[in-house]
Amino acid sequence: MAFQKPTGTQDLLPGSVEKWQVVEEKAREISRRFNYREIRTPMFEQTNLFVRGVGETTDVVEKEMYTFEDKGKRSMTLRPEGTAGVVRSYVENKLYGEPDVTKLYYIGPMFRYERPQAGRQRQFHQFGIEAFGAVDPALDAEVIAFGYQFCRELGLKGVQVEINSVGNAASRAAYRQHLVDFLMPIKDTLTKESQARIERNPLRVLDSKDDQDKFGGAPSILDSLDEESRTHFEKVKQNLDAMGVEYTVNPRLVRGLDYYTLTAFEFKAEGIGAIDTIGGGGRYNGLVGDLGGPDQPGIGFGIGLERIQLILEHQGVKLNEAKPLDIYMVALGEAAETEVTKQLFKLRQAGFSAERDYLGRKMKAQMKSADRFKARYTAILGEDELVQGEIALKNMETGEQRTVKLDQLVEELG
Amino acid sequence: MAFQKPTGTQDLLPGSVEKWQVVEEKAREISRRFNYREIRTPMFEQTNLFVRGVGETTDVVEKEMYTFEDKGKRSMTLRPEGTAGVVRSYVENKLYGEPDVTKLYYIGPMFRYERPQAGRQRQFHQFGIEAFGAVDPALDAEVIAFGYQFCRELGLKGVQVEINSVGNAASRAAYRQHLVDFLMPIKDTLTKESQARIERNPLRVLDSKDDQDKFGGAPSILDSLDEESRTHFEKVKQNLDAMGVEYTVNPRLVRGLDYYTLTAFEFKAEGIGAIDTIGGGGRYNGLVGDLGGPDQPGIGFGIGLERIQLILEHQGVKLNEAKPLDIYMVALGEAAETEVTKQLFKLRQAGFSAERDYLGRKMKAQMKSADRFKARYTAILGEDELVQGEIALKNMETGEQRTVKLDQLVEELG
Repeated sequence: MAFQKPTGTQDLLPGSVEKWQVVEEKAREISRRFNYREIRTPMFEQTNLFVRGVGETTDVVEKEMYTFEDKGKRSMTLRPEGTAGVVRSYVENKLYGEPDVTKLYYIGPMFRYERPQAGRQRQFHQFGIEAFGAVDPALDAEVIAFGYQFCRELGLKGVQVEINSVGNAASRAAYRQHLVDFLMPIKDTLTKESQARIERNPLRVLDSKDDQDKFGGAPSILDSLDEESRTHFEKVKQNLDAMGVEYTVNPRLVRGLDYYTLTAFEFKAEGIGAIDTIGGGGRYNGLVGDLGGPDQPGIGFGIGLERIQLILEHQGVKLNEAKPLDIYMVALGEAAETEVTKQLFKLRQAGFSAERDYLGRKMKAQMKSADRFKARYTAILGEDELVQGEIALKNMETGEQRTVKLDQLVEELG
Repeated sequence: MAFQKPTGTQDLLPGSVEKWQVVEEKAREISRRFNYREIRTPMFEQTNLFVRGVGETTDVVEKEMYTFEDKGKRSMTLRPEGTAGVVRSYVENKLYGEPDVTKLYYIGPMFRYERPQAGRQRQFHQFGIEAFGAVDPALDAEVIAFGYQFCRELGLKGVQVEINSVGNAASRAAYRQHLVDFLMPIKDTLTKESQARIERNPLRVLDSKDDQDKFGGAPSILDSLDEESRTHFEKVKQNLDAMGVEYTVNPRLVRGLDYYTLTAFEFKAEGIGAIDTIGGGGRYNGLVGDLGGPDQPGIGFGIGLERIQLILEHQGVKLNEAKPLDIYMVALGEAAETEVTKQLFKLRQAGFSAERDYLGRKMKAQMKSADRFKARYTAILGEDELVQGEIALKNMETGEQRTVKLDQLVEELG
């Protein structure tokens, strides 16, 4: 009886895991340049953190959470997204007490019990950033430029940035009313789900796929922005222009979640037959307070790494993931075996990647291994060479072969 | 109402997370040299995998697992260790069909509901390797040398390697009988826990802390080794000698778990007032078959990363974790702000780490930020310089200050 991985989870194996490593190294490298530092929060948190932080009426909380009772009878939930845990940690560890803007990034698994499909797993992975403590629109622009730069440097084609303003609390309240006024007369023509949302969360009605054709005359949130919200949005655009980040304004972009304020944005790229959303985010000036912290503003994005991999593959982007072996060593005879053990360890200690055979295979099979590992060099140690303190070294690229002193092997490769 | 992280979990924040990054980069770097490639398995698996793979009678399975029912009514468990999932993946993905030895490493969170203490968390982290498909004792020596080299390169002091052979199945059966013969006459003097284990798992009785003083005359497993087991162990030692890896043979080292065969080993270092175990492992030639796979041998180790961090800190080892900022830019006036936004993005696109102020602070406060970030350079852009297309650049190490062309800034830093 063999076991299988849980539905909706993946094994990342050699041959594909390297693509993940390259994307993550890129995320870390760009974080360094933008001066964001890593934060790691636990894989699970108290369930209420997500109920409060993600929103009680969201699909995530209503249907998709991995919630369980621990042995101490506390309700815990595997994190369904990254922001709530980071905000919890920011508050609990009093990071708001530091003099600079708190700029954080995270990379790791998240969990949602959804129907698995291409690019959507029950254990999925996100790269995200969060910046706390400043309302400067230049910071909004920085966060958007960060995601844009990340997508570009990965080599994604057709990267698009869509931005919008969902306004401050006052603007949102005004817009909400305009929207309800627009939706009520057409209520009966909408799906049941949309009807239920008109009262609870009218902005999310606009997300409904089935009702899109009825929203042509819907009011634009941009017409409800007050002075403060409008000025903020203008400055975000001005900063993006200064950086040369191309974007389009999409007044329909409201990002479902209740907690967004002012800036909202999404990153897209040419996907499978259409434009795919890679990730997005926005400003959330009320969330830190909602989760029991001081009144500190925040802004961030989350990018789906499964989605990135899928689009990279679809676009045929070649990531530079090659790490060929430096040297494959072949021993002929038992005395040579022990010497190879010794030399191999010396080479590895000196920083080279080095391999040998552990299956008692014939030389020809071993040379095939060297090929599979794309070894730069092979070295063959026979009994005669061993007596002379020498080894035959072959450059696999040029085919050049020569005999070198065993105690010079590390230097010869250098 | 603020939230707290779950008991027994940690937030890794900027300032300490860098120490984790350095250790993980070292693990990946040495894996590359030893030709081990990464595998990532899900955070949770079917509960039965661990019951079967770790062992029904172990504390882990009996008391410590995070087990829950998913929304599909399947019993799932957050992985309490790394080997079972890797073996499951090796079998499910038929990695045994590849011509070379399958050499894998993993780094990530594991979960056990234990009483939290220093270096022991409910969400803890391990670095481990597993090699499948070869019984060559040179591979055992490689795995041991890998762990040794990892500890050494981190800068740990007093690294010790203990090795033992727990024999093949026949030798273990013989030893088991010798051990029961030794334990039965002293049964009444032992703790209840030890008494219960005599029948079920006599080797684990020797792990009992409370009964150690009664085991002076216990038989050594080394005396029960048959020819095959003895030869294997001798060759492991011979290979370790060839590599110059220092070790001691500890005949009491049996590593609790049932599945170990032949080689068992542990890594230790000077810890808090005593010698601490960092990790260990062994050969498990029956486990792949037990988990429904073909009859393929395996060997591996697991190293606790919390433990590593604790000992590094205790020993005062300084990790090279510094990543100073390349440049901090100060803008004086609104027009300069926009130019700084533009220059900052250009610098970041060119690979430099660059930062600015987002809090509208005075220049003096901004220069303090530059100091906190250990900026190599600061650049100050005033209205006059902006008109001239220039900026004042200061080398913070030498104190040298000069005026450079704005469009030459990237080159000036290069």
